[in-house]
Amino acid sequence: MLRVQVMYPNEPGKKFDMDYYLNKHMPMVTDTLGNLGLVRTEVDKGMGSMGDSPAPFVAIGYMYFEDMETLQKCMAKGQDMMADLPNFTDIQPQVQISEIIQE
Amino acid sequence: MLRVQVMYPNEPGKKFDMDYYLNKHMPMVTDTLGNLGLVRTEVDKGMGSMGDSPAPFVAIGYMYFEDMETLQKCMAKGQDMMADLPNFTDIQPQVQISEIIQE
Repeated sequence: MLRVQVMYPNEPGKKFDMDYYLNKHMPMVTDTLGNLGLVRTEVDKGMGSMGDSPAPFVAIGYMYFEDMETLQKCMAKGQDMMADLPNFTDIQPQVQISEIIQE
Repeated sequence: MLRVQVMYPNEPGKKFDMDYYLNKHMPMVTDTLGNLGLVRTEVDKGMGSMGDSPAPFVAIGYMYFEDMETLQKCMAKGQDMMADLPNFTDIQPQVQISEIIQE
């Protein structure tokens, strides 16, 4: 199983509209990619780190895919979803594609 | 549910012994925290990012906890596990504590 994380760094002075993200953006992701093989999504809200340090990421969106072929088909639609970013944040996300090798 | 990610940045010239991590370090985590309320663990291996960019993280370890009280009890044991890091990597991990708010 492949896990894609879209990670929004916790940068001072930046905005992140969690309400829009949960109720508009993520449903758009599911609507767009659901028929193409997206297995499921999750959303994390950053709470903290070690000690009193702030969370490195204010929010992380997860997308799960069965294989690389399906993922690449979905990535081709990535532009549509990236175009929605200014509607809820001015943070430039980092994208991590991983294989889940132990669970 | 709370998700803790221990994220190892993908830095040139650094080492990460995945075999030790999977077969020695993560079992130590489970042995140490299993009785204290750790729900489960997962391990991701970084594969890539958008386009041809390298994965931001070479590996990510996940720990799941029911609530903050349990997590804090487990974090108090964190030093033991951090002491094992030099046995498999010279990367300084980032730690993200999140609440899973949509799944």
